[in-house]
Amino acid sequence: MKTFVVPGDWRSWVPVAPESHFPIQNLPYGIFSTRDGRPARVGVAIGEFILDTGLLHDAGLLDGPDVFSADTLNPLMSLGRGAWTALRQRLAELLRDSEPVLRDDERLRARVLVPMADATLHMPVHIGAFVDFYSSEQHASNVGRMFRDPERPLLPNWKHLPVGYNGRASSVVGSGTDVIRPCGQTVTSNEGPPSFGPSRQLDFELEVGFFTGADNPLGDTVAEDQVDDFVFGLVLVNDWSARDVQRWEYAPLGPFLAKSFATSISPWVVPVDALLPFRVPGPEQDPTPLPHLQTALPWHFDVQLEVAIQTDRATKPQRVCRTNFRHMYWSLAQQLLHQASNGTNVQVGDLYASGTISGPDPDSYGSMLELAWRGERPIAIEETGETRVFIHDGDRVLMSGWAQGAGFRVGFGELCNRVAPARVR
Amino acid sequence: MKTFVVPGDWRSWVPVAPESHFPIQNLPYGIFSTRDGRPARVGVAIGEFILDTGLLHDAGLLDGPDVFSADTLNPLMSLGRGAWTALRQRLAELLRDSEPVLRDDERLRARVLVPMADATLHMPVHIGAFVDFYSSEQHASNVGRMFRDPERPLLPNWKHLPVGYNGRASSVVGSGTDVIRPCGQTVTSNEGPPSFGPSRQLDFELEVGFFTGADNPLGDTVAEDQVDDFVFGLVLVNDWSARDVQRWEYAPLGPFLAKSFATSISPWVVPVDALLPFRVPGPEQDPTPLPHLQTALPWHFDVQLEVAIQTDRATKPQRVCRTNFRHMYWSLAQQLLHQASNGTNVQVGDLYASGTISGPDPDSYGSMLELAWRGERPIAIEETGETRVFIHDGDRVLMSGWAQGAGFRVGFGELCNRVAPARVR
Repeated sequence: MKTFVVPGDWRSWVPVAPESHFPIQNLPYGIFSTRDGRPARVGVAIGEFILDTGLLHDAGLLDGPDVFSADTLNPLMSLGRGAWTALRQRLAELLRDSEPVLRDDERLRARVLVPMADATLHMPVHIGAFVDFYSSEQHASNVGRMFRDPERPLLPNWKHLPVGYNGRASSVVGSGTDVIRPCGQTVTSNEGPPSFGPSRQLDFELEVGFFTGADNPLGDTVAEDQVDDFVFGLVLVNDWSARDVQRWEYAPLGPFLAKSFATSISPWVVPVDALLPFRVPGPEQDPTPLPHLQTALPWHFDVQLEVAIQTDRATKPQRVCRTNFRHMYWSLAQQLLHQASNGTNVQVGDLYASGTISGPDPDSYGSMLELAWRGERPIAIEETGETRVFIHDGDRVLMSGWAQGAGFRVGFGELCNRVAPARVR
Repeated sequence: MKTFVVPGDWRSWVPVAPESHFPIQNLPYGIFSTRDGRPARVGVAIGEFILDTGLLHDAGLLDGPDVFSADTLNPLMSLGRGAWTALRQRLAELLRDSEPVLRDDERLRARVLVPMADATLHMPVHIGAFVDFYSSEQHASNVGRMFRDPERPLLPNWKHLPVGYNGRASSVVGSGTDVIRPCGQTVTSNEGPPSFGPSRQLDFELEVGFFTGADNPLGDTVAEDQVDDFVFGLVLVNDWSARDVQRWEYAPLGPFLAKSFATSISPWVVPVDALLPFRVPGPEQDPTPLPHLQTALPWHFDVQLEVAIQTDRATKPQRVCRTNFRHMYWSLAQQLLHQASNGTNVQVGDLYASGTISGPDPDSYGSMLELAWRGERPIAIEETGETRVFIHDGDRVLMSGWAQGAGFRVGFGELCNRVAPARVR
């Protein structure tokens, strides 16, 4: 058995509300710490609790090497697909309502179940490389329509390969970290001259990313039937973008400082196995991709996605986007197969992000650039009467996502970052 | 004293030929191992020897923590500018002909001086991030003339900022590592359709890169007077490129798989202090860069650079390019100031490469694309009667570079990689 899907009718002895993102069918991994001074370590989300896997291992309830006391998931990921599957099955069995070993051991239970409200979540993975794709047809078409050619918004290569570029891994941050508005060169005319100052067009990009959990040597490619072995889990990604900086800098070598100041990811890494029941066919691909980009099974997933904004003056977030991960044209498997097709090595802890996920409807666009259509359709913040074309200082951007099962949700939790003012010398 | 320049009239008691790249004025750092089974460790090149700094430290001749037994230079770099300067001065004093402590200790000398011919050199640095710039005006103009507009070869942004993009750090390899010809999508028409197979336009790019040796927190910029604190040392870089893959994939997000299969660097990291005597003014910059990109001192260096090719049938390399690092339009300081201007964090072990270095003359171009001008001017290999437009399987590409002092050369040694055939499934 390569993967392990927790049956939909299993229930945990830990109480889990139907709208919780963390039922027994999910079991996502994260890195957490508590106020007791113990170092950050590996936990698993279940309902409103975090299961302290290090203590479970100490108690003899988990086999294998202690990868649970590490302050990143990289050692756990390095164990490989067989170990991921066995661990996932073991965790589900320990948490299942019919299993007494932990359920009935009140003392151990009190130690290993940490209320999420008492914990701090940290960056889950040491990210060696960050690649960002551009795989939503609607997003690429919207951008092409705005800035290139309304008649032919997609470039000729777009339907033949998942266009992507290397991002900056060192500035990937977690939920809760303030995003500092970047400074950069911007222009009022396409020809320049530029001026330097805080970006006036700070934007979010709603994306989903996957972490690879296996190494592939330089020179080797990845075969279609190996994708399971490489894909460890998924997170929400906010690929923060300074649109005005991007427009001036990006030709001919692509986005650079317009993106590298920050990218944020959600704290829980949802195992790909938890999403397998939500596998759906992607859109028909015409032209048919070249053989090395074809997969036997679809690698699209029915995951509902939302973005909300809470301005400094507002008391609650307002949803501005509702879309679905299934709208991607290129699947995550195709992204991985493409990435490895030239022999570039893959590493434990690489992050590959989807690119902005935009759906067919104007309220399903995954960036302010598209939602407010280059400023032509400002978004009204109902509670305060403010409007937004891009993101202001003090605004919080909240992203959320989940797959809806029968009576449970497999979710990502929340990714929330506040924008702090630019630091000007 | 922030930096330490070894006076030009110092000589070492280790014999150093005038054309050696490694006189006492250089003292570059590398990682080496020997056949005795001891792990790879930090060494310093002097003449035809490697000084084993770990053994020197054990012998009490070097102060501070033992950063010398590490298998990368990262711990040494992490000590910071003050420690780099002190260590460099100490090493120069120990090796100076007038200093007896090591010169006259025959037993110790025999242990700490390893013949370079007996050693294997390894990747010197764990590279956290790799950024590639595009800072030679001649190169950018040549490419613009070939592929865009012969009348206006530079895009409007080019003279306002050092255009750059994020590369793939995980596939940076050392000298001696075979570069496997990548497969990828290529087209015969700009509109496609593509086919998939080994690249037919494999190219080198002659570059010089610098390593940063200090961390800068996310959100902070780098000021002009801090450049010294960040720049640890320099290496030669061959930014291998698959031109046919690049042409199809690169719009609109820049080069990706056309570059990520391999980048190679020379084994010795030349301290920036060793190049300070070779500081020269760069070309006049018109328009004047914005204030955050201005530096009080020039950060251009008079370093002669050469590329040679040795085909499989040839017995010796043939020089195909001779140019100079001083031809760069944007200096390495300007690259660093730009990179950090949006608050992206800088890390110990980041590699920033110059972009292809082309001079004004046709034999000073730093890539086959330019030397053979898109195939119109094939290069004759005199020894064998072969010709080359791009690089063939079995070819070796050799890069070399040095600054010429009065009776000595501060050099990079040699970067040599052979091209191995594509691995086709």
